[in-house]
Amino acid sequence: MRQAGRSLPEYRAIRGGGTILDAIQDPDLSTELSLQPVRRYGVDAAILYSDIVVPAFAVGFGLTVTPGIGPEVEHPFRRRDDLGRLRPLDPEADTPYVVQTVRQLVADLEVPLIGFAGAPFTVASYLVEGRPSKDHAVAKALMLSDEMLWHDLLDRLADLAVASLMSQIDAGVSAVQLFDSWAGSLSPAQYRRYVLPHSQKVLSAIGSTGVPRIHFGVTTGEFLGQIGEAGADVVGVDWRVPLREARRRVGQGRALQGNLDPTAVLAGLPAALAATRDVLAENAGHPGHVFNLGHGVIPTSDPDILTEITRCVHAEGRTDGPTA
Amino acid sequence: MRQAGRSLPEYRAIRGGGTILDAIQDPDLSTELSLQPVRRYGVDAAILYSDIVVPAFAVGFGLTVTPGIGPEVEHPFRRRDDLGRLRPLDPEADTPYVVQTVRQLVADLEVPLIGFAGAPFTVASYLVEGRPSKDHAVAKALMLSDEMLWHDLLDRLADLAVASLMSQIDAGVSAVQLFDSWAGSLSPAQYRRYVLPHSQKVLSAIGSTGVPRIHFGVTTGEFLGQIGEAGADVVGVDWRVPLREARRRVGQGRALQGNLDPTAVLAGLPAALAATRDVLAENAGHPGHVFNLGHGVIPTSDPDILTEITRCVHAEGRTDGPTA
Repeated sequence: MRQAGRSLPEYRAIRGGGTILDAIQDPDLSTELSLQPVRRYGVDAAILYSDIVVPAFAVGFGLTVTPGIGPEVEHPFRRRDDLGRLRPLDPEADTPYVVQTVRQLVADLEVPLIGFAGAPFTVASYLVEGRPSKDHAVAKALMLSDEMLWHDLLDRLADLAVASLMSQIDAGVSAVQLFDSWAGSLSPAQYRRYVLPHSQKVLSAIGSTGVPRIHFGVTTGEFLGQIGEAGADVVGVDWRVPLREARRRVGQGRALQGNLDPTAVLAGLPAALAATRDVLAENAGHPGHVFNLGHGVIPTSDPDILTEITRCVHAEGRTDGPTA
Repeated sequence: MRQAGRSLPEYRAIRGGGTILDAIQDPDLSTELSLQPVRRYGVDAAILYSDIVVPAFAVGFGLTVTPGIGPEVEHPFRRRDDLGRLRPLDPEADTPYVVQTVRQLVADLEVPLIGFAGAPFTVASYLVEGRPSKDHAVAKALMLSDEMLWHDLLDRLADLAVASLMSQIDAGVSAVQLFDSWAGSLSPAQYRRYVLPHSQKVLSAIGSTGVPRIHFGVTTGEFLGQIGEAGADVVGVDWRVPLREARRRVGQGRALQGNLDPTAVLAGLPAALAATRDVLAENAGHPGHVFNLGHGVIPTSDPDILTEITRCVHAEGRTDGPTA
């Protein structure tokens, strides 16, 4: 469960007042923040505490993540000259704290660790818009008006993601997740033309390592097949698409991740468990399913309800183990 | 094109510094604001200048629309007691300015006027959240945790929409549009259980008048069929769903409205016209199509590009007239 930590009192107790980039640059703090949700919920995997803008930040693009707002860029990406601000990432030199955090986590954890990177489109949206955006209008206008510059930008961002994920794999992560949170603002034709080749570049580079690849998005229902085609072993599905329908669109040979509506967690225990059981029923015992929320954990979520959801999935959702 | 006015210099020149609710309560100003986009673009219909919270505002629920933010409610809807704050709407007494604006527009316009109301779910989201929300989490938590109160709330909001639309029809509108802008935050099962009956109530009440009904939403691709089932003659489609696929989901006997990506308008004239022609090509000359953007006009849109899009659609999109 991504962002599972931020609803925890123990998270708020140690997170401190700095930005998330400050926390990420402190391996001991990041290690602890990654461990907290695993300890609390007993989930079956941990995810690296990170942010999708880390590589762009680390190569000096000039951005921060403002608490309560999100990524903010002093000089947004607008022209060909700006490509020069996205030099290749040297993970050992530029993000030693990421490598260190992964090593510590792999040593400490009894469950697999999932690595973390932003997909080219979603990172591009922040770099072009300069701040979080509802419609990604400035980024999409650049995409539609200057296709060559767009592809050059996404190619650089793909390289950053590959370098970061490879360093995480070298340091011991058991799987990786590529976050394309805002790709769902695109039409299927736009995704195919302007985004798919770049996400494919990232995921096929990782494919050579044999490490499983999770590919996450929201409101991507119309092109779930392409999200899979990009090279994912596991395709993230939000709550808008029933799992049965998602399986039809994604096709055989790929697993699904999702798709509990995060707002169900706020509705009290009976409603949250009913929604959990609906997801399990929709999955109908198919083994290719990673139970998860369909998007990040909402900060006001009650940790005890997340604990009960995890218990419910362990008790009722396993079809290949002793409880089946 | 909804919100087509706000990108116009002539709009900004007369709109004044008050809230949109101030402007709506001034029939002469609202009439002029409704006429401006028709004059500028030569579109084939006008839409009433309005806001989805008007009926709730008019019965004294206690809300405002803060410029740059959106609807804000002093005491959000949270408990059964709050139902008392949503008494029935008496349009002649509570919203005489709406009736007056419609009458003036019908007298002035040479094209049909489309009436305007918010659908129960989207209005409920604002009343429960108290402000615009990305995930509608508080509203959806109420929906999932207290189904009876939820249905009572949406039933009252359906009554408000019916009363408002009926008064607009009596005053002469030629069609109505029901805006359920945020219904796309729901899963198909949630929409069917918690929302469909109420939108159906609104649209079937209007159905008795014989006035065509447009039913609008975004990210509703997974339940476009239900949006139609709710009683629409025309189903709004955002740019995420290709029109051919939308037609398959909606079925025969209903027209589609949409679905140009509003961000294409920001990408310069060649890209905007290319995207316009893609929509016309996807529609393949089907007569059951109202060309429109897939969502509201982005305020930074260039009016000249919207003019050229309108010209292009008139020149190349008509399949049943002399230009065919």
